[in-house]
This record gives sequence, C-alpha cells and structure tokens, in this order.
Amino acid sequence: MRVLFVGDVFGEPGLRAVALRLPDLRPHYDVVIVNGENAHQGKGLSRAAYRRLRQAGADLVTLGNHAWDHKDIYELIQTEPILRALNYPPGTPGQGHWVLEVGGKRLLVMQVMGQVEMGLNLYDPFRTTEAILQQVPHDYAILEVHAEATSEKYALGYYFDGRISALLGTHTHVPTADAGFLPRGTAFQCDVGMTGPIHSIIGGEVESFLGRFLTQRPTPFRAARGRAVLCATELVLEGGRCTRIQPLRWEEPE
Amino acid sequence: MRVLFVGDVFGEPGLRAVALRLPDLRPHYDVVIVNGENAHQGKGLSRAAYRRLRQAGADLVTLGNHAWDHKDIYELIQTEPILRALNYPPGTPGQGHWVLEVGGKRLLVMQVMGQVEMGLNLYDPFRTTEAILQQVPHDYAILEVHAEATSEKYALGYYFDGRISALLGTHTHVPTADAGFLPRGTAFQCDVGMTGPIHSIIGGEVESFLGRFLTQRPTPFRAARGRAVLCATELVLEGGRCTRIQPLRWEEPE
Amino acid sequence: MRVLFVGDVFGEPGLRAVALRLPDLRPHYDVVIVNGENAHQGKGLSRAAYRRLRQAGADLVTLGNHAWDHKDIYELIQTEPILRALNYPPGTPGQGHWVLEVGGKRLLVMQVMGQVEMGLNLYDPFRTTEAILQQVPHDYAILEVHAEATSEKYALGYYFDGRISALLGTHTHVPTADAGFLPRGTAFQCDVGMTGPIHSIIGGEVESFLGRFLTQRPTPFRAARGRAVLCATELVLEGGRCTRIQPLRWEEPE
Amino acid sequence: MRVLFVGDVFGEPGLRAVALRLPDLRPHYDVVIVNGENAHQGKGLSRAAYRRLRQAGADLVTLGNHAWDHKDIYELIQTEPILRALNYPPGTPGQGHWVLEVGGKRLLVMQVMGQVEMGLNLYDPFRTTEAILQQVPHDYAILEVHAEATSEKYALGYYFDGRISALLGTHTHVPTADAGFLPRGTAFQCDVGMTGPIHSIIGGEVESFLGRFLTQRPTPFRAARGRAVLCATELVLEGGRCTRIQPLRWEEPE
Ligand SMILES: [Fe+2]
Ligand SMILES: [Fe+2]
Ligand SMILES: [Fe+2]
Ligand SMILES: [Fe+2]
Ligand SMILES: [Fe+2]
Ligand SMILES: [Fe+2]
Ligand SMILES: [Fe+2]
Ligand SMILES: [Fe+2]
Repeated sequence: MRVLFVGDVFGEPGLRAVALRLPDLRPHYDVVIVNGENAHQGKGLSRAAYRRLRQAGADLVTLGNHAWDHKDIYELIQTEPILRALNYPPGTPGQGHWVLEVGGKRLLVMQVMGQVEMGLNLYDPFRTTEAILQQVPHDYAILEVHAEATSEKYALGYYFDGRISALLGTHTHVPTADAGFLPRGTAFQCDVGMTGPIHSIIGGEVESFLGRFLTQRPTPFRAARGRAVLCATELVLEGGRCTRIQPLRWEEPE
Repeated sequence: MRVLFVGDVFGEPGLRAVALRLPDLRPHYDVVIVNGENAHQGKGLSRAAYRRLRQAGADLVTLGNHAWDHKDIYELIQTEPILRALNYPPGTPGQGHWVLEVGGKRLLVMQVMGQVEMGLNLYDPFRTTEAILQQVPHDYAILEVHAEATSEKYALGYYFDGRISALLGTHTHVPTADAGFLPRGTAFQCDVGMTGPIHSIIGGEVESFLGRFLTQRPTPFRAARGRAVLCATELVLEGGRCTRIQPLRWEEPE
Repeated sequence: MRVLFVGDVFGEPGLRAVALRLPDLRPHYDVVIVNGENAHQGKGLSRAAYRRLRQAGADLVTLGNHAWDHKDIYELIQTEPILRALNYPPGTPGQGHWVLEVGGKRLLVMQVMGQVEMGLNLYDPFRTTEAILQQVPHDYAILEVHAEATSEKYALGYYFDGRISALLGTHTHVPTADAGFLPRGTAFQCDVGMTGPIHSIIGGEVESFLGRFLTQRPTPFRAARGRAVLCATELVLEGGRCTRIQPLRWEEPE
Repeated sequence: MRVLFVGDVFGEPGLRAVALRLPDLRPHYDVVIVNGENAHQGKGLSRAAYRRLRQAGADLVTLGNHAWDHKDIYELIQTEPILRALNYPPGTPGQGHWVLEVGGKRLLVMQVMGQVEMGLNLYDPFRTTEAILQQVPHDYAILEVHAEATSEKYALGYYFDGRISALLGTHTHVPTADAGFLPRGTAFQCDVGMTGPIHSIIGGEVESFLGRFLTQRPTPFRAARGRAVLCATELVLEGGRCTRIQPLRWEEPE
C-alpha cells in the first residue's frame, strides 16, 4: 500500500500547490492524507477549502490546533472524512481516527496533539493513542503527531516503536531531514513541513508577522501570497510494516 | 572562505563523533564552529569536553540555554573562543560575538537566543543583534539562532535578510530540510541538528526521557549512549555573500 | 499626599462601580489612578470608557497586556494621561511613566509588565524601571507591576525596596491579603484586584469561560454582567515615604 | 465540623510556625489539613518534616507540584495520610483523595492540580475531580486546587459550585482577600497563602531568587530564614454545607 501524506496546507498558495501537483501524484498512491488545518487563509478549514483538497485527490483531511478556527468545520466534521486530534476531551465533535480499506488491508490513521507548548491542555497523547490502537482492528497504523517540541514527537515515536507503521509530525511548518526508521521498525519523521507560500514566516506574511515580534502588540494576521512549495512524505506499507519513508518537495514554477 | 558549523554536540557519543569525523573534514574548511552546549553529558561544557572539541578542530565553540550547566564554563569563557548568546543581560560573563580573520576577511560570528518557549527571559534578539551588526566591522556575518519556535527563527531570518551572510538555527536537535536562501540572499537553515546518539530522544536516554512524559514526575536525566550521528552545515562565503549552504550528515559505522 | 489606586476596571459593571463609588471617594484623595485595561467590555480602553473613568475622578489611567485591544487607544495615548507598560520596545506609542505635582511634590507613577507567563516578550522590567527611576526627578514613586507570577512581583518589590514609595500589583484580578511594608520601607501589595462583575471568572462570563476550559476549543469571550465590586488600595505618602497602605473593597448594593 | 487548612508550609520557618502555633489552635478544630509540599527546605516533604507536621496536629498532609522533590515521599505516601494531586496519570504512587470521619460525617478531601502555567501536563482537573466526587460517598467535600492561574481556580469553583462544600487554592504562596461564597453556596478562596519566612520571595531567599531574575542564569535555590508567618483558613461545615470561611494570619513574634 502506498500512502502520501501532505503537510499543513496553508492558505491560497497551499491550495493552489495541491491543485497543481496532487492530481499528477495521485495515481501513484492508494491513499492520500492531507493536513488542512491552515487551508482557509491560514486559519482552519472552510467548506470551499475542503472541497478543493478533496477534488485534488485527498482521501482524508486532518486538522490540528487550528481545527476550530473556521466555523464550517462543525458541520463538515459530522459527515466528512476529517480528523481532529484524538486527545480532545470527551464530547468533542468529530473523530480522531479513521480506518481506510485498501486491497483488503485496514489502514488506521490517527491524529494526536502534543501537550508541550501548544497553548492547549489536551489529554495524555500516550495513553489516549494507546487506547485507540488497542481497540480498533487494523493491519497498518499511521500516527500523525501535531506538536511543537521535537522531544515529545520522538518520545511518542519510541513509545509506539514497533507497534505502529509510521509516525509523521506536523505543526512546525518546517520539514525535517530525519526521515528514517526507529530501532523496532516504525518509520518516523519529526515534521513533514508545510504546503504553502515559500516567502513567508511559516505561512504568514513576513511584514505582519515581523511586526508582532518587533512591537509585541497585536497585529492583524495575514497569510502570505506568492509562489508555493508542497511538502509531503511518501510511505510504503507492506508485509505488515512500513518499508519506505521518503519526503517529497515540489516548488511551483516561477 | 569555507565554514563548517557543527550542530549541538551531545554527550560522549557527540564528542566521539566529532573526534572521529572532524579531523578528516577540517582541512577542507577555513573556519570550524561547533555548538557545545550539551557536550558534557548533555548539560553544559566542561573543560575536558571543550578541549576535545578544540583538539578535533573547532575554532570557536558556541553554547545555548545549557551554557551555565557546568561550572567550568565560568573560567573557560573568560579566555577561550567561546560564545554565549549575545542577548543575556548586561554583566553576563563572556561574549556573544567573535571576529575571526581569514585571508584578510573578517568573519563576524554571533549567537542569539530566542524568546519564545525557551523558559528564559533574555533581551530582544532583533535589536540586540542589530546593535552588534552595526558596531562591529566585518566582511561576513553568521548568526546562530538558538531557539525553539520555527516562526521566531524565520522572523530573524527575514529581518536580517540581505544584511548577514547566513543564519543557522540550533537547539531543537533535529536537522531541518529547508537549507537555502532567503529572497535577499541570506543563507538560512532552521536547524542544523544534533551531533550525538542516534537512538535517543534529542540526545537523552529513551527510557528516562519517556518516564518523564509518562509519569509527569521528576526523573533523573541521562544522556543516551550508542552509535552517533554528526549533523553539520557547510557555508561558502565569497564575493561579499554566502554562495553555498549544504547540510552534512555522517553516521558512525555500526 | 493621599493616593487611591483602583484595580483593573472590567466592562460595564466595572465602569458602573467606578461611576457609583468614585465621586464620593474622590474628595478624600489628592491623586486617583485607575487601571483601565479591561474597561471596554473586558478588552482594552475605548474613548467612551476612558471618558467615564475621567469623569468619575481618575487623574491617570493605566493599561496592561490588553492595552492595544481597542483601536481608540492609539489616539488617546498621544494626548491623554494614560500609561502603557514602560518596558515595551523602543518606538511604542505612549509612555510608561507620568509625573503629577501635588502641593509642590512630584509623584512619579510608573507601570511595568512582568515577563513570566504573560504571553509577551517585553523588556527586562528591573533595568528598564531602574532607568526611569534614575532619570526622572521625583519626590515619591509608585510602581504598578502588571504581572501574573507572585515571585516576579515580590522580586521587583525587594529589588526596589527602600527606593520607591510603593509597589502595587495588578493583572490577576484577585486582591491579595498581603498589603504591608517590605523591610526597607516600600509599601507593597501583590495584587489590588479587579473592579468588575462579582459573579464572573476574573470578569468574564462564567459559562463562556468554563466552555474554554472544558472543550479546549475557541469560545467567544463575553464580559459578565451583574452586581459589581470595586477593589482599590489607598496610599498615604508623607515625609519622603509611604506611611499607610490600605486596601478598600466596595460592593454594589443588591 | 470545624476544619483548619494550613497553606504551603515552607522550610524551617514554616515548620517552626506550625510547631509554635498549631498546638494552640488544634483543640478548636475537628480536622487539620496542612499543605506540606515545601516543608523540606522549600522542596518536597521529608520524613522528618512530615513527622513535625503530624506532631503539631496535622491529620492530613497535602502536596503539589513539589510532591516528588524529596525521595522520602515514595515510602511515606504508601502508608501515611498524604495526598498528591488526583489528576496524575494512572500508576502514580499514592492517592489524591482521602475520607475522614468526624462525628459520623464523612469528609472527602481532594487535591487537584491546575493545567495552566504549571510546567506539567496532568489530567483534566474538571473531569477527574468529578469522577472522584461521584464515586466516593461523602457528606462534605473540600477541594484543594493547587494552581497558578486565578482564572482556572475560579473556573473550577464555578464548575463545582453547590456540589462541594469548599474550594481552597494553594501554590501562589500569597493569600488572597476574596474568601467568600460562590452563588450556589460553595465556600471559595483563591489562595490560602504560605506558612513560611516573611522576608522572602514566596519562601525563597531574596538574594538568590533575585539573582535568577537579574542574570537569567541558574542560581542555587535557598530557602529564606527568619521570622515566619502562618497563613490558614478556617471552614465550618454544618447542615450539609460550609457556613463559614475565615482566613487566619499569625506572625511569629519578633
Ligand atoms: Fe499548521
Ligand atoms: Fe498547528
Ligand atoms: Fe542543544
Ligand atoms: Fe538548547
Ligand atoms: Fe492584564
Ligand atoms: Fe486586567
Ligand atoms: Fe506549588
Ligand atoms: Fe507551594
């Protein structure tokens, strides 16, 4: 089974990159998962943004700390293949895991959010993920860890090493150069990176973002425009495990 | 001018990797800078660790948030080519910038620490770095940004874009796959990565580090052992700017 | 010289409490200082809210981390007796200190913001306050510390003990029962408390605020309504120092 | 039923204050609860410190974020009437609630830790406390909330208002002047305050603590010495609810 995971799609440039590049990639994969937490102008997932991700080829869309920034999500998440983190409190709309069937094999996809420096107090990511993993029958499991701290992502990696097929990090918007395998065979990459505007501060417009740092006063957030990059990671799942993890990078032509 | 920057050297495996690999690399570079904040068993820089870094070929050793963890530093920093972050308060021992001369050209090396999620309240990294940059005559300038948040590293990158030769991030211990050039020509990499034990949680022993996450109680910190990786980044400075930025990765043979 | 300091005025109930109670108190004081950072519906200071505070008897209005939440402040702060924290970066509109003359004596009022857990990275409160204290001639000095951590407020208290007349904390919206004198004579109270709705979570509506804690999703902020409390602290300055510090509490009749 | 709750006992001065004052107070109360998280030189609870608290009259000793700082606690907590926060992960030694019987009435005492700005990621304090409250039969319930943010303490207060007898906050080491009743009858005080050295920064020695703020480098922690204050709060429980909440303050004679 071949899986493509596309990192945080950010605003118009991110949606454009997905529309331009994903249709060509799509036929090479059985499953395409896209993180869309920043798809609507950098904040949340609107109905329009969701449709564009799906039309370009996404089977499953995941969120993150920006999950609830656009109100459309409350309706979308009731019926569509969309994941919010599994460690939100009981009663949270939507779901944190999803099972896709490919050629008779069940792929369990989970998203969990970190607790360190995320400005949120979600549930213990270790034990909540463990519970899903135990309860939901599957042949392969991919865990997306939406988190800031590299230590927490690696800690989750070692905790589930050998028990899940792959762990892919998101949220920092910068791809890491550490894609590989942990000692017991789980594929791991600390962050897949962002799909969005190249000339930006993690997707945001340089000028407005810099203003925040320099003045320490509230500044209007604006998504950057311009040429986009697509960051994604390819996984090959076979024989009960992940046998290949390969980051992809595509830049929109100038 | 060819410069090699070696990322956070962590404990015995990091020192070993430097000793094994740096002597071979050394002749290809004019300047070798090594971040040594974790060289002594993961915490700080002892006299012994410093000597080993120098003997292997380091011209300049930089620190970070672990700068003061080993008491030897208070003596070392008085006389040796060692940098702590330049945005510590007035009265802090040591210095945050250093000028090296190579072939008649002055290379200014600076280290600054981020303010976001570092557990410290250092001075404004934008304006303190700006002051050094204005006051110290130089032909080339490299800024090491020791910080957690990708947004802060990119913000500093864009702020100084076109005014410094290169910005290299450290501290997360995970190398990023974004080495390249900002629009006005400054070379940039969000994080150089760690030089230390491969099977570890950012250098720390897996078991003890996991214990911290799982129990939320204090656990003794232990540096991991075992096979090491060396993460470094090569810069070529010529014609007034950086013309090449190239990450290196070397793994100790099994 | 008799000074009344009124704690964070929060929304309509806070403005009403000031309008109902301050005119009666006013004749007993030479100077009335009011923290108005939450006066406009809990977020910032509008022109209308400012006028109501002044008409009720405020000589000087101070702000805090909510200083810039309402856009009116950018005009108001140019001409009116309003203080934002003195440790904002250079170039910040407005001022962080003010000198009032009473009977030939100069009262220096300063506001500084803490660095711990405030979600902002302002300048070093110790050294920036020190600079004002050294440069601005005065007979008495009051320092308002707008901060979260009790340790930081006490640290500033001991640092300036004997060198300022009084330090009054704000921001937590809960009055502390520690009003008294530090060893070298500076009057100190960790927090003056809030002037706002009694049945509230630090001024915010209980239901919406609880929703945030329980769901960890964004919830609309709403200021609470209902019966108000006024929290203030009285200072008597004479013979070169503060000789009396006395918290006041007034509750709106049912 | 008359209950005395003594706030965070800090170091030698705190233990001395308890020894000097509690024996006289003890006969007036049916139950005495003492927070001892800082009893051993400011960090944790040693066997010796625990014995002194018990000999002075404590029936139950509670902890906090410093629970595990002294290794003795791992043995003590197995057998003694000691509470750590109830929202630690499963598998944590000890217990977070205790039932005391007085005149045929069962008093449930619980401790929970906040999640905001505590540097820890404990479990959801709302739902974990709720579970204990539902499962453990009792006539009266006291909840100690060991937390930093006033908003979180008030949020827990309103959430359990009318369902517990009293909520008492600890951890900031500064007593608040808000002791009273929430709308549905639960007694509430945001913080009981510290029992420890008066001339100190929340118990710590002024000079060493100030050094931390001023240098941003590690400084040895030292508990302050000198004259002590005892901060406590008295509760009267009768007719199914708390009918009186009264803070006490006692200062050691000079
Ligand atoms: Fe994102
Ligand atoms: Fe995110
Ligand atoms: Fe490091
Ligand atoms: Fe570091
Ligand atoms: Fe505030
Ligand atoms: Fe406020
Ligand atoms: Fe505590
Ligand atoms: Fe404490």
